[in-house]
Amino acid sequence: MASRLIEGSKLASEIKEGVKRKSSRLSFKPGLATVIVGSNPASKMYVSMKQKACVEAGFYFENFELPKNVSEGDLISLIGKLNVNGRIHGILLQLPLPKHINNEKVMESISPGKDVDGFHPLNMGRLMAGDESFAAATPKGIIRMLEEYKVKLEGKNVVVVNHSTVVGKPLALMLLNRNATVSVCHKYTKNLKEYTLKADVLITAVGVPKLVKSDMVKPGVVVVDAGISKSGDKTVGDVDFEGVSKKASLITPVPGGVGPMTIASLLENTLMAAERNKS
Amino acid sequence: MASRLIEGSKLASEIKEGVKRKSSRLSFKPGLATVIVGSNPASKMYVSMKQKACVEAGFYFENFELPKNVSEGDLISLIGKLNVNGRIHGILLQLPLPKHINNEKVMESISPGKDVDGFHPLNMGRLMAGDESFAAATPKGIIRMLEEYKVKLEGKNVVVVNHSTVVGKPLALMLLNRNATVSVCHKYTKNLKEYTLKADVLITAVGVPKLVKSDMVKPGVVVVDAGISKSGDKTVGDVDFEGVSKKASLITPVPGGVGPMTIASLLENTLMAAERNKS
Repeated sequence: MASRLIEGSKLASEIKEGVKRKSSRLSFKPGLATVIVGSNPASKMYVSMKQKACVEAGFYFENFELPKNVSEGDLISLIGKLNVNGRIHGILLQLPLPKHINNEKVMESISPGKDVDGFHPLNMGRLMAGDESFAAATPKGIIRMLEEYKVKLEGKNVVVVNHSTVVGKPLALMLLNRNATVSVCHKYTKNLKEYTLKADVLITAVGVPKLVKSDMVKPGVVVVDAGISKSGDKTVGDVDFEGVSKKASLITPVPGGVGPMTIASLLENTLMAAERNKS
Repeated sequence: MASRLIEGSKLASEIKEGVKRKSSRLSFKPGLATVIVGSNPASKMYVSMKQKACVEAGFYFENFELPKNVSEGDLISLIGKLNVNGRIHGILLQLPLPKHINNEKVMESISPGKDVDGFHPLNMGRLMAGDESFAAATPKGIIRMLEEYKVKLEGKNVVVVNHSTVVGKPLALMLLNRNATVSVCHKYTKNLKEYTLKADVLITAVGVPKLVKSDMVKPGVVVVDAGISKSGDKTVGDVDFEGVSKKASLITPVPGGVGPMTIASLLENTLMAAERNKS
């Protein structure tokens, strides 16, 4: 059986077109501010991708780069100004932050209504209770892809390989909100293959090339690969695409799968924040 | 193999004694307010158990009973008064609420620092990020029992049968915080036995007598039964205790297992809220 590709890039383009259309009907520009601390090249790359997407969608965009040794107080003070800045509807604090900064404290300083990354605990807790208004962008993009491709989740065995606060945990909650049976695996899991073999839907976000091989999945599985790593000069995911795609019914490519959907979800969240905040 | 009992009642008594001792050293009484809407007999019973425990621990206690048809606004207004009432350090809104009331909205009206039930989304989100200060009482009591009995969680296969916002979801997050591999099952799960058979630790909170039979667990499993239902005039859990206790290494009784631990956790949360709030 040959898999069908889950065309994240194509779906993301459609979503971005929709956001642009809605945005152009507003009497103002939705505005996103990104904040980078230090000069992590990956962070800079992610921010420049977000900037490009914002500009294309007709958004206002500002990036703030703070030095690596910035104090927690100064970072929180910048966020405080962005919280009350009328041109800015979404604030995105690019992770990771340097070790001397308390992630949770800074995250809680972002106004929940401008928390377009969905990382504020208030939005995380609301997501847990079923209100997914500000869902974290990667989980949101993954769920959206599955829904677009009519993948039934209720009663299905779904395996998530990642238990971080920004991906695995919110994704597991969103899957539970849809009545999937959810198993969350990670680097401490001793018998990953036993889990993956039972998966109707397998979602990985690890960053280990070829972690998932074809003998680890059952025929017909739906595979979403949110892993990103470099293999030589190629960007690859967690899944041995060549082997697994022969067994899967649906599979995301890397690149061109989850990545663009994450950015599209961020634009959607920013538009929504702008619409709610416009009055 | 005969199981060892996880003596929730005994551990809960020790915790309650500790709370009482600490409470007696304060210059004021920790205060808990409970709020019941309508006259659900089970709600009244739970509240009277909490009242008894508070009085025994030397706490100040007040119960507020509102009529079934109370407006959402009046309920929120009562909570607003309790939020600023200096004698009250913990507010517990007994669930379920009548259908005309928006659970989430009312829950968010409780001051997060007085949310001793851990149901405010801000506290739920903090728990997700690893700060379990105000963890929901039942999950907190379960984790505490497992820790007390030296049950290792990291890398273990843990199965939770319940996916509610008040038990299954926070419990799953607390288990993930401890690096367990966590599967969350529920009434939509099609192959429960396949999951339970793999569990090193099995935690159920369903309310279906004899849902878990001895052929559904592996030898040496640790079983925590948070189910409560009536079988004739007996209170029973979800587990066929007679059969399963022959295979389990550790098992909670019902009654006398999770129930008392939930109340002990509530007292701990209230004491902590009082200590934090004392200045």
